[in-house]
Amino acid sequence: MKGLREIAPYIPGLQPQEKRMIKINTNENAFSPSPRVAAALAAFDAGELRKYSSLDNGDLRAILAKNNGILAEQIIVGNGSDDVLALAFLSFFNSSDKVIFPDLTYGFYRVWCDLFRIPFEEIALTENFELRTADYLRENGGIVIANPNAPTGIYKSLAEIEEIVKQNQHVVVIIDEAYIAFGGETALPLLEKYDNIFITRTFSKDAALAGLRVGYGIGSPKLIGIINAVKNSYNPYSVDMIAEKLAVVACEDVAYYAKTNGEIAEIRDWFSAELLALGFEVLPSLTNFVLAKPVGVSAAELYAHLQAKKIYVRYFGDKVRIADYLRISIGKQAEMVEVLMAIQEIL
Amino acid sequence: MKGLREIAPYIPGLQPQEKRMIKINTNENAFSPSPRVAAALAAFDAGELRKYSSLDNGDLRAILAKNNGILAEQIIVGNGSDDVLALAFLSFFNSSDKVIFPDLTYGFYRVWCDLFRIPFEEIALTENFELRTADYLRENGGIVIANPNAPTGIYKSLAEIEEIVKQNQHVVVIIDEAYIAFGGETALPLLEKYDNIFITRTFSKDAALAGLRVGYGIGSPKLIGIINAVKNSYNPYSVDMIAEKLAVVACEDVAYYAKTNGEIAEIRDWFSAELLALGFEVLPSLTNFVLAKPVGVSAAELYAHLQAKKIYVRYFGDKVRIADYLRISIGKQAEMVEVLMAIQEIL
Repeated sequence: MKGLREIAPYIPGLQPQEKRMIKINTNENAFSPSPRVAAALAAFDAGELRKYSSLDNGDLRAILAKNNGILAEQIIVGNGSDDVLALAFLSFFNSSDKVIFPDLTYGFYRVWCDLFRIPFEEIALTENFELRTADYLRENGGIVIANPNAPTGIYKSLAEIEEIVKQNQHVVVIIDEAYIAFGGETALPLLEKYDNIFITRTFSKDAALAGLRVGYGIGSPKLIGIINAVKNSYNPYSVDMIAEKLAVVACEDVAYYAKTNGEIAEIRDWFSAELLALGFEVLPSLTNFVLAKPVGVSAAELYAHLQAKKIYVRYFGDKVRIADYLRISIGKQAEMVEVLMAIQEIL
Repeated sequence: MKGLREIAPYIPGLQPQEKRMIKINTNENAFSPSPRVAAALAAFDAGELRKYSSLDNGDLRAILAKNNGILAEQIIVGNGSDDVLALAFLSFFNSSDKVIFPDLTYGFYRVWCDLFRIPFEEIALTENFELRTADYLRENGGIVIANPNAPTGIYKSLAEIEEIVKQNQHVVVIIDEAYIAFGGETALPLLEKYDNIFITRTFSKDAALAGLRVGYGIGSPKLIGIINAVKNSYNPYSVDMIAEKLAVVACEDVAYYAKTNGEIAEIRDWFSAELLALGFEVLPSLTNFVLAKPVGVSAAELYAHLQAKKIYVRYFGDKVRIADYLRISIGKQAEMVEVLMAIQEIL
């Protein structure tokens, strides 16, 4: 049969379904979503579902515009930031020059380039997993930077991000801010000065709505016009009616999330300090996870021992540079105490 | 700025938001979804939403497999059949030969070919808007047939579909069965004989869940393996947790939908006969809509007059071959009586 795509079969990550477990392997939020989400869900009229969901996600774009101090015309909404990022790659990376991003970053950047046959080059982070600004001042077909980066957790200052955006005004620079709410400073103010920046966000991390699949992108009305046309050429109604409604009420509860995400940041800093006290190497994180290198036991061994205790963390055995590290999402305080005790037992 | 996609801005169709109106322009189901959907929605625990939705949609694939008498390995689930179809184009149409489909059919086939730079050719339907089997026995890079077709509503017999599938075993033949539940015979039995068929379905029409964004595709485990890898390279979690749950309970209520969709088919046949009695030309439909050519008034005029009465139907003024027709979705009996009375008044 001709025309079939040659593609490696996908091997999904572990999604354990144990009754009693600590699942800190996919950077889900430790807390439930805002109580307003439950209230809106309970009030939702199922009869409405016979109708199509909103084509322009006007309600959600309106409150996102208000919360971010921008215009609705500067926002596109999609089915998670994965959808928004994939559409952005299709929309903004159509030259024959290589798109550049770090060798250690969100794994999908490379996957989308492969899928859409976009030329790309991975630029090595430094020994300390830092992104060197100078490396991004070369000829390229576009730039993608996760800030803070994953799976390192490391944040790059706004001044350095600005330098990269400023020196690359001939291409689109995507700043993936999936984890920005856990401590970093958003690149949003750069929108006023540069029209080549496209920022993506998700409701999966800081809004505790991973199961709902909502994300968004922010850029100039011109960039949004292009990606909107591409979205509407792919799957216009990708955000369902319930998801949009619940995302809107989550946006209305800024105070709740400031509290819970602030608490996650505190737990993260305390947990990092505890791991350091055990002699672990811990990368400085401004996210809801930490990347840490154990001592006295290999990452592979610690991963397996924790799993035997029904504690699921993330091990990147196939990624040479971080094969000695484990990525641990930040759960609630009591869970992280249990994780620490388990680690001490294993050691 | 380089790399920007050249694409025509999308002009969305009319989505009226009147308080009191008859909206029969987007083929939404006339009835509410199964009462089990409302019950499952009310029982859903919002706290679960902090976690990612299912990667393999195992629950939904299991009941779809049961209902269709096939294996879960023969099913892929996506964010509406638009998503499944777009992924299928990416997965199965990678040769340099032209993909072929009718000149009058679901408008997105052409849009996806443009988006993914897939060569294609539109094959003219006959004068009577029939698809001629002989036209699809030529060299091609893949075939797409909506059965029943939209916006004509015309159904092609299973024997003729089989002939096309049988004579084209070197390519994938997609049969888009969005409207199959309103009277046609599914191509599902062909799966046992041919491995080059890929069938798509949606929950938007017969399941009355357009607002939920769920669709699925059926094919050989080999084809499903390829499209699954492509899906997981694009946006793996595209069906959210609530949508999957509600789709599952909808599948459990076969009896409800047999009743409501049977009623829609009856209203359609009665409504068609009434239009014929007025002298309209009405294409034979096995869907939840009819394509009809008015007499004594142009399609454009009738469209405008109906809209003035807050009755919204679909007018394809930009499509030369059907510019004299209106597409009217089938609403509830009382609504269609009102539509008929309005048409008689206008005439």
